[in-house]
Amino acid sequence: MDLLTGLRDALGASQVLTGADAQPYLTDWRGRYTGAAQAVVRPGSTAQVAQVVHLCRRHGASIVPQGGNTGLAGGATPDVDGRAVVVSTRRLDRLRAVDAGNDTITVEAGCTLQAVQQWARDAGRLYPLSLASEGSCTVGGNLATNAGGTQVLRYGNARELALGLEVVTAEGDIWHGLRGLRKDNTGYDLRDLYIGSEGTLGIITAATLRLYPLPVAQRTALVSLSTLAAAVALLPRARAGFGAALTGFEVMSHASLEVVVRAFPQQTLPLGPAPWYALLELSDSESDAHAQARFEAVLEAALNEGLLLDAAVAGSLAQSQALWQLRESISSAQSWEGKNIKHDISVPASRIPDFVAATDALLQQAIPGVRHIIFGHLGDGNLHYNVSRPPEVPEADFLARQDEVYLLVHDSVHAHGGSISAEHGIGQLKRDELLRYKDGVELGLMHRIKQALDPLGLMNPGKVLAPR
Amino acid sequence: MDLLTGLRDALGASQVLTGADAQPYLTDWRGRYTGAAQAVVRPGSTAQVAQVVHLCRRHGASIVPQGGNTGLAGGATPDVDGRAVVVSTRRLDRLRAVDAGNDTITVEAGCTLQAVQQWARDAGRLYPLSLASEGSCTVGGNLATNAGGTQVLRYGNARELALGLEVVTAEGDIWHGLRGLRKDNTGYDLRDLYIGSEGTLGIITAATLRLYPLPVAQRTALVSLSTLAAAVALLPRARAGFGAALTGFEVMSHASLEVVVRAFPQQTLPLGPAPWYALLELSDSESDAHAQARFEAVLEAALNEGLLLDAAVAGSLAQSQALWQLRESISSAQSWEGKNIKHDISVPASRIPDFVAATDALLQQAIPGVRHIIFGHLGDGNLHYNVSRPPEVPEADFLARQDEVYLLVHDSVHAHGGSISAEHGIGQLKRDELLRYKDGVELGLMHRIKQALDPLGLMNPGKVLAPR
Repeated sequence: MDLLTGLRDALGASQVLTGADAQPYLTDWRGRYTGAAQAVVRPGSTAQVAQVVHLCRRHGASIVPQGGNTGLAGGATPDVDGRAVVVSTRRLDRLRAVDAGNDTITVEAGCTLQAVQQWARDAGRLYPLSLASEGSCTVGGNLATNAGGTQVLRYGNARELALGLEVVTAEGDIWHGLRGLRKDNTGYDLRDLYIGSEGTLGIITAATLRLYPLPVAQRTALVSLSTLAAAVALLPRARAGFGAALTGFEVMSHASLEVVVRAFPQQTLPLGPAPWYALLELSDSESDAHAQARFEAVLEAALNEGLLLDAAVAGSLAQSQALWQLRESISSAQSWEGKNIKHDISVPASRIPDFVAATDALLQQAIPGVRHIIFGHLGDGNLHYNVSRPPEVPEADFLARQDEVYLLVHDSVHAHGGSISAEHGIGQLKRDELLRYKDGVELGLMHRIKQALDPLGLMNPGKVLAPR
Repeated sequence: MDLLTGLRDALGASQVLTGADAQPYLTDWRGRYTGAAQAVVRPGSTAQVAQVVHLCRRHGASIVPQGGNTGLAGGATPDVDGRAVVVSTRRLDRLRAVDAGNDTITVEAGCTLQAVQQWARDAGRLYPLSLASEGSCTVGGNLATNAGGTQVLRYGNARELALGLEVVTAEGDIWHGLRGLRKDNTGYDLRDLYIGSEGTLGIITAATLRLYPLPVAQRTALVSLSTLAAAVALLPRARAGFGAALTGFEVMSHASLEVVVRAFPQQTLPLGPAPWYALLELSDSESDAHAQARFEAVLEAALNEGLLLDAAVAGSLAQSQALWQLRESISSAQSWEGKNIKHDISVPASRIPDFVAATDALLQQAIPGVRHIIFGHLGDGNLHYNVSRPPEVPEADFLARQDEVYLLVHDSVHAHGGSISAEHGIGQLKRDELLRYKDGVELGLMHRIKQALDPLGLMNPGKVLAPR
């Protein structure tokens, strides 16, 4: 029996897509990569996922797991050789259990992040992961890429939010690891090995996730600063003054907000012009008045110390949303001005000012007049360091230098003890760059793990690790 | 050249201990296990650790890493065949760097936990891991066993506190993974694989750890409750009302405090007798008065709801210490009354009342009159469920039934979705029990990892995994 017949027998013909039906699954959403596949399959249960893996093994077909197809590194797009079967997890979309008394929720991999957030709210709890793509990205994708977002400062990445997993291994076995325990020291940490492995070791089919109390009140403030170093110096003061109530600490350069105001003239800055801005969010377990009072106390002390130029605390939910909208409009505003070269990097917070100064200077040397659009999750040391062309340079000429810019910026990140992929993963986008920056011993260990858990090399080949 | 000569050449003769000098390293501190070794070596640098591993490989000697030798599961004690070399990390005791601006500290594996706590405080920061053995346990041991303690509720286990590791692999290579990044998605999570692997995959030689702001004030309260279910119901209310300021939530049965008051008559309870007590700790980022006011508000609401029988907030540091001393005296008070059978287990918080009721009943059936001394970190679902003999049963007769009691309690833990080792690890103590409770697929994956990273099987053999 051939593979397609076997897949149709196992899943029903309507869940085995080929031809035009398969196309939407074969291109990543940024449109950078398009691959080919024997079929796209949509299993409806963990047992069906295991059947698919067994069938692919028997026929030597490689397996590309895919969630919401919102990844930024091409990790869920098959290569062009056409041997692959794409396994879409979107039909694994059931809520298995909410245990409010244990502050956990168990969901299948194809649930959207938004659905999980809503189920948690329905139970009077918070699932704190929050991303731009939350309406369509899935729990399985969040975990496979260890997604980040805006609340990592307080609640951690996707990794820190997962207590247990259910996984179909590369051998087609089901690992029943859906534990809802905060302490469990009974052997190797397989959970964290599958998390962040981008579908190259197995397929995550369900997860038990941590829930938190819903905050009683949330307040947002925008502060202006004369230097990036001042923003970095504000961070430990904010952490000390607000404790874990500090759930957001974003930084934005003047240039990045200029782009927003130019693209979206209805958006306005509540503060006068300044070289840098920081957006702080407090999630208070007491009251709105308490959050307001804490903001005033801590920001006034920072103002008196000369750390801030000015500060504005949002007085209403609408004002707070307007502040967040400034931050969240940067990417689209920048796209509106034309294509740019993006970097998703992290360095230790203490080295951020040096990193930015050094990298800015090197880039100006390489491409005089280039514009740096710098913003990101300063509380996590994670910057989106995006580079726009000088107005006089044609777009095509600028984009032709993309690899040179990547090399320059990533070399600088590496020299400052940083990471070339803070929250987006490696996928196929940065796979070859990884060879340049990763410790050789570490790469060797990664290959051994891959060989041990996927000896046939069928799981998402060509992602994360280059073939040896 | 024989192994001992090679080791002496590499480390200096004074750092290669044999005979009586080696003895203190060959018995665990509870005195349950005594092994034998060709030598105990005390390397003074990571490079020397790597040399030791190379020498042991060449001579086919197994390697038992050891930190402060305070483990509770025999994980750092060699077996009796005498082939092993014990590698003590205690001379790797340097502070490599404090980066206050990044809230990180980098220390070598042999540093005591207390030294790290002090270095953090010297930099105006908190390293929140806190254990009874902190004066002698080491960072390397904390990470190798993923140690827990009393502040896990807020700050997580040792795992959650580590950002980067330096490891000498089983091949004698050095992995330079000392990253101080809160976001880094560049490949498989080797860090978390070495953490908790109890020295069976390699030797952790240094770590970069997270620091936190020092709290401005700390307050403690004791509450009395009529049922364990009321304590479980108080937990989400306390989490919601205090947010992340809640840094401790311990539970103690009446029987466990009775034992303390009997053994140490100078200790007194500030509340009248009740079936259960909970000890709550707040770490406030604002002021002592604020902590006091929060305690009053949240505990008053719980009292009015009928959840609590009574509550006492410590009015001074001395009162607070006296409350913690009650909790911390339970183990020694129980030992003072004779040997008992201990369990370090976790179940989902929501299932704790059912678990305790069911297990208590089964034990009474098996050994009528047996006493349950139940206390622990309720906030993490982690109980120390200890069993003392009925007064009329001779100690020897009672202890002869230890394996039967383990089986009964651990079967019940398993049936309630729990873990047979919440924070102490597997070592040799629970190695064979693991075979009974661990998912077969998971055990198989663990063996593959072991085979991949330690193909010669020289790293701490016989710990965690039984030979196949």
